[in-house]
Amino acid sequence: MLDAKAAADISQNPFKQDFPLLAGHPELAFLDSAATAQRPACVLDAERRFYETMNANPLRGLYSLSVAATAEIGRVREQVARLIGAVDEDGRALAQDVVFTRNTSESLNLVAKSFSPLVLKAGDEVCVTIMEHHSDLIPWQQACRAAGATLVFLYPNEDGVITDEEIAAKIGPKTRICAAAEVSNVLGIRLPVEKIAAAVHAQGGYMVVDGAQSVPHMAVDVRALGADFLAFSAHKALGPMGIGVLWGRHDLLDAMPPMLTGGEMIDSVTEQDATWAPVPEKFEAGTQDAAGIYATGEALTYLTQTVGYEAVAAREAALVAYAWERMGQLDFVELIGHPEASQHHGVISFNVRGVHPHDVASILDMSGVCIRAGHHCAQPLLTWLGVENLACCRASLAFYNDQSDVDRLVDALTQVWMVFHGRD
Amino acid sequence: MLDAKAAADISQNPFKQDFPLLAGHPELAFLDSAATAQRPACVLDAERRFYETMNANPLRGLYSLSVAATAEIGRVREQVARLIGAVDEDGRALAQDVVFTRNTSESLNLVAKSFSPLVLKAGDEVCVTIMEHHSDLIPWQQACRAAGATLVFLYPNEDGVITDEEIAAKIGPKTRICAAAEVSNVLGIRLPVEKIAAAVHAQGGYMVVDGAQSVPHMAVDVRALGADFLAFSAHKALGPMGIGVLWGRHDLLDAMPPMLTGGEMIDSVTEQDATWAPVPEKFEAGTQDAAGIYATGEALTYLTQTVGYEAVAAREAALVAYAWERMGQLDFVELIGHPEASQHHGVISFNVRGVHPHDVASILDMSGVCIRAGHHCAQPLLTWLGVENLACCRASLAFYNDQSDVDRLVDALTQVWMVFHGRD
Repeated sequence: MLDAKAAADISQNPFKQDFPLLAGHPELAFLDSAATAQRPACVLDAERRFYETMNANPLRGLYSLSVAATAEIGRVREQVARLIGAVDEDGRALAQDVVFTRNTSESLNLVAKSFSPLVLKAGDEVCVTIMEHHSDLIPWQQACRAAGATLVFLYPNEDGVITDEEIAAKIGPKTRICAAAEVSNVLGIRLPVEKIAAAVHAQGGYMVVDGAQSVPHMAVDVRALGADFLAFSAHKALGPMGIGVLWGRHDLLDAMPPMLTGGEMIDSVTEQDATWAPVPEKFEAGTQDAAGIYATGEALTYLTQTVGYEAVAAREAALVAYAWERMGQLDFVELIGHPEASQHHGVISFNVRGVHPHDVASILDMSGVCIRAGHHCAQPLLTWLGVENLACCRASLAFYNDQSDVDRLVDALTQVWMVFHGRD
Repeated sequence: MLDAKAAADISQNPFKQDFPLLAGHPELAFLDSAATAQRPACVLDAERRFYETMNANPLRGLYSLSVAATAEIGRVREQVARLIGAVDEDGRALAQDVVFTRNTSESLNLVAKSFSPLVLKAGDEVCVTIMEHHSDLIPWQQACRAAGATLVFLYPNEDGVITDEEIAAKIGPKTRICAAAEVSNVLGIRLPVEKIAAAVHAQGGYMVVDGAQSVPHMAVDVRALGADFLAFSAHKALGPMGIGVLWGRHDLLDAMPPMLTGGEMIDSVTEQDATWAPVPEKFEAGTQDAAGIYATGEALTYLTQTVGYEAVAAREAALVAYAWERMGQLDFVELIGHPEASQHHGVISFNVRGVHPHDVASILDMSGVCIRAGHHCAQPLLTWLGVENLACCRASLAFYNDQSDVDRLVDALTQVWMVFHGRD
């Protein structure tokens, strides 16, 4: 693991060399890691290694290749369980409670479709925050509609903070499920997930945590959070695309019917009926992306062992602080969200006064600066924020960025302003 | 494309060098391609190339990397459409009707969950064959249960052939949907999909084709088949794991609600409601495995351009004919299915008299011979076949196999017999 203090020196970049796309494209300032991360070479090597040395369909095979593939999936399941604190009282990883899906969206759909019908009835409430990504919002709209339940929103104050008062006002005896992102993909703020979980648990309800924007950046512990379910994606955490995780409390997963049926997830099948395999196979119909799961293990090892969350956090904080300060000096830039840089976990959303975010992104691209612009899959939040065009720009930073990336963003933003407004 | 006649010479193997696992492990005879294929180096190179040169989250981005990723997905969609004959009257590929999923199972679940409620009502019938893989069976069990419909089976004659009489007897005015594999994953036989489609269309119903075992081996044309939906997996067709395809008739896809909701698949979202993007995005919630889709394009190019279906078919036919003859000479081996080798498309299922298939597979593994043993996700078929232990062995061949693989299988089977029965 890297020393956090050394990692915080953003004038140096000891990481770039590990990332082929960044090393091979020095002309790019990649500031869109909240959409998808870049992958270190070790992850690409791992994916290839799987295909070259153990490629076989796992679970079904009795020969060595297939047995090896199956064992590797089990190993990564255990690694994921340990990563998120899913361990029993004796410290044993609860690997069987880690379900592999395609992405966070599928993980959250699985909970909304398979779990919520078990606990939601007409008149009940599901509580989400206005900051949720569409993937943690629309599935709950659908679940509420199916049950005749009501979807209730937690709103932040003007700084983007969800207060204790708001939690107390919105979570009550009717609340059966709360769902919240641990970190907002637009505001970058960390939400008070523990408090929301405590409030819903006090009502006998359940807490679903969208960890898509937290797991890549900070140690997440499902016990400390009070999560009953946690979802995240490998591709935002240095892993390959196409792998999502759903962790759930065993008794809840056990009670849930499968969402998808087919091969691998059955116990026995007759012409007219079928019974299910135990958790987690019950939820993993068909051939899984074993190579992707294997490479995900490598990504998490790189993230937590080679770099380490302390170094990640220290460096991202330094990057955001620097960017926040420099962007704050541009009077044509409107920064969005909490006024303190420390509350932005790798994410800075902003607008350039009078310029459409799509134009900003396109002009930045000409300088090799990659940012995202639009609604960021959070239209209700952008509506609530009242930003023009229901859109904003977002620069999202990762530990593999450095000071020069921020400098290039700032220079390119100045160019944007000049394109639209001339030299003052 | 390779000359078919040259490819049929199974004493030579010009393909092995393209497949790193096979080239690097000459000790293995990989005879489990019906479970998952091996991948040529060009596919592994492509996956890496994506991550090294255009890795970004597609669809949402306005910068060059993301635009490139988005364009590549569109290109592969078009390639897939052309591959399966999904073209309009002017020969234009119907790329927008190609939905990327995780695997064949998910594709079939999507049809059973999102399409069947639109056409199934209580008292209706869904007709499948007894040869279906669980992935093309359990979703229909579930769909019938949800609708109060009845699941009806087409049974083959003793050779594994579904006769015209059987089709006429089982498909009638109540039949709203037929679902059938084009090639059985256990018997290797090609099913009369065109006839089943014609019969169900005559009743105003719909035809769903499971192409998991046909697309890797033969040219498939959805128009010639009369398919309304076609599902297959990239990983059985030399592509990466984690990519499935669902093609559907545009008007049907258009009418279907999404199965999963979240990012990327919306048009607009308010606090309480959402509207959907057009087909195919409507069905692709969350970040797709863009790298896997890109590599799938490379796999299909290798399969259809570098090798070519004619060469694939000629070589696989030669391999099966040779294996069928040699295995037929072993009096302790019971071959399953049609008596003619030509009716087995790459698949030979069998049992060793008095030896459990799991034991056969384990002993073969000691000789580096990789076969599958068990129920092959087709328990109702094995029940119907009446095989002991509801299990059998399956050797499945691909064009990258050669005569020596078959020889090693035959030698190892003889060893199995000697282990259990001594030297006569």
